[in-house]
Amino acid sequence: MAVIPKGFLLGGARCGLKNRRNDIGLLVCDGLASGSGVFTTNTVRAACVDYTRAVIADGRLRALVVNSGNANCCTGEQGERDTARMAELAADAIGCRPEEVAVASTGIIGHLLDMARVERGIAAAGQALGGDPKPFMDAILTTDLVEKSARAETGGGVVYGVAKGSGMIAPNMATMLAFVMTDFAVDPDLLGNVWRRVSGATFNRLTVDGDTSTNDMALVFASGASGVRPAESDLEAALTEVCLDLTRQIARDGEGATKLVEVVVTGSADPLRIARTIAESPLVKTAMFGCDPNWGRILMAAGRSGVLFDPQTAILSLRASGEDHTLFEGGSPAGFDAKRVSTALKSDHVVIDLRLGEGETATIYTCDFGYGYVRINAEYHT
Amino acid sequence: MAVIPKGFLLGGARCGLKNRRNDIGLLVCDGLASGSGVFTTNTVRAACVDYTRAVIADGRLRALVVNSGNANCCTGEQGERDTARMAELAADAIGCRPEEVAVASTGIIGHLLDMARVERGIAAAGQALGGDPKPFMDAILTTDLVEKSARAETGGGVVYGVAKGSGMIAPNMATMLAFVMTDFAVDPDLLGNVWRRVSGATFNRLTVDGDTSTNDMALVFASGASGVRPAESDLEAALTEVCLDLTRQIARDGEGATKLVEVVVTGSADPLRIARTIAESPLVKTAMFGCDPNWGRILMAAGRSGVLFDPQTAILSLRASGEDHTLFEGGSPAGFDAKRVSTALKSDHVVIDLRLGEGETATIYTCDFGYGYVRINAEYHT
Repeated sequence: MAVIPKGFLLGGARCGLKNRRNDIGLLVCDGLASGSGVFTTNTVRAACVDYTRAVIADGRLRALVVNSGNANCCTGEQGERDTARMAELAADAIGCRPEEVAVASTGIIGHLLDMARVERGIAAAGQALGGDPKPFMDAILTTDLVEKSARAETGGGVVYGVAKGSGMIAPNMATMLAFVMTDFAVDPDLLGNVWRRVSGATFNRLTVDGDTSTNDMALVFASGASGVRPAESDLEAALTEVCLDLTRQIARDGEGATKLVEVVVTGSADPLRIARTIAESPLVKTAMFGCDPNWGRILMAAGRSGVLFDPQTAILSLRASGEDHTLFEGGSPAGFDAKRVSTALKSDHVVIDLRLGEGETATIYTCDFGYGYVRINAEYHT
Repeated sequence: MAVIPKGFLLGGARCGLKNRRNDIGLLVCDGLASGSGVFTTNTVRAACVDYTRAVIADGRLRALVVNSGNANCCTGEQGERDTARMAELAADAIGCRPEEVAVASTGIIGHLLDMARVERGIAAAGQALGGDPKPFMDAILTTDLVEKSARAETGGGVVYGVAKGSGMIAPNMATMLAFVMTDFAVDPDLLGNVWRRVSGATFNRLTVDGDTSTNDMALVFASGASGVRPAESDLEAALTEVCLDLTRQIARDGEGATKLVEVVVTGSADPLRIARTIAESPLVKTAMFGCDPNWGRILMAAGRSGVLFDPQTAILSLRASGEDHTLFEGGSPAGFDAKRVSTALKSDHVVIDLRLGEGETATIYTCDFGYGYVRINAEYHT
């Protein structure tokens, strides 16, 4: 049985925009698919962000062309022409109209694309279309250490997604790209509404270093080839399962990361804001890298979030290696065995659980922060 | 001539709250001084923060007792009693009322103070009061590499300040303490107004890692012993000079820092917010550590600040080693010699200058971000 959903073909090729691996990818639907996208909120944006947002405005897409090794950002009007040209070349290779093709780029900022190479790459990727996702997955990676994909099958339909990030994009920033396909039949309006909610609950709850790329993009395509029209809740559950899996994979593969850290906050007027502040705190992240059960830093970060709570009622626990340790409760440190907790924290998956009373729970997905981050980000030179 | 302003005595002693150096400091005014303070905004606060805020509410202070090596934070009601007891012990040593004594603490979170040691330390510091600031300066340091003081003399008055931070407080967070003395005669209301403005323009424009301590405190004392009643603008100028000097010293001595980085943004609706976002970006800070003229990261950080601007009109320059290099202008990278700029960035003082059009200028003071930060914050164990 095919890995990818019915109605899709993927292809990848290497044209020399980066040193190793493929750097041009094509994602093609047999017919016009329903499509939706969420994009970076950065004021400084690559040409492809505005281009693809316009292409997808009618909720219909046929294909995606993506390159890695060059973000085509801060490249002026020539950059805009090159993005449009990528769509034309992909449309020629596939046999569709350029205005049905989304474009994504990731890589170095401020350099013009070598369009002769891009042209060869798109033609080669168009010749190599098939059901194996690997050449496409390769083509979107930069310094990611591992490929990232996730799959869910439910009620006669398949959801399959691939992602890249937050490996460092030489020489600039972490970019997240995610492309999710399903063979469910979904009307564009419904798909857009569900996609915004799913992205909000998954990709938008991911932080590696708080920096936001110029090129971030998460697209969904629904081919309808399964012939199954799912209930909205089933569609949302399947997309959430795939996107949450990709989110965890991206956090775990963060720059220099040794572990996935999930920050779970319950209660207070804004648990999400508290969770995000804890997850972005360099002091918390270095403590996780050092396997240090440093509850003071976690409470400090919660306290500086701007959300009021009563520290007397806070209960702070760490879960790792199948153990659950309470570090702080009732306004005072709990009697815990620091050495044992530190050993548990050597796990590659740690949950920081802060309970501030009754109420909603919010989770942020992040990673620890160690020497590797500095090495990747300081030793590379533009 | 004495270094410290007229009407003040300083003392320091070592009582064993930390391994080396003094850990108890006394600052004493001959009579009741005008006083004002600004405090951490963290929801999780040490007992001394609320205590000193109450003591200073009437704008009058006689003395300060400070300890390092223990933040006395998250220590419950016993911690509150210990803070009040520190004020009593200092009042006994000096011969004043406890409600005229401010209390500050810095160090480890979640441990009760060893009050037998504190009692001996306060008595010893009271015996050692004099005009030499060094024993007091020693007593407020934690992992700071250097002592920090600044002095201004103007119109017959002296302003003198000492500070600590942002060395790491084992095992918790960067705490900033600043104590500024002047022999000008200033009414409490005027002093409070000026102090809030001065702190806002200096200490509140400082960031090392974006984390905010539970114990931050900046106090000012005016003894009046010079007999000079300054114009408000002269007082503000002298206090600003001293506090800006201390701010730069703290940034330069940030954890693992190799250089002072000043981020100067001009134009847009909120240049301060853009400057703060750039200054807190781990990607910008690691680039500064690596001496990498990585303009893409700086523009990315500005773009994710949430403040709208037109990247086409942005002009980005770096100043270091007496050179001024424009990296980005008119929507595109400027033709700069990357190797030469990288050599200039080896300086211990770099200015990032981003102009977004006409308008106000805002400056944030920070440092770079390298292996030393990870070492200090990950390798220490609670």
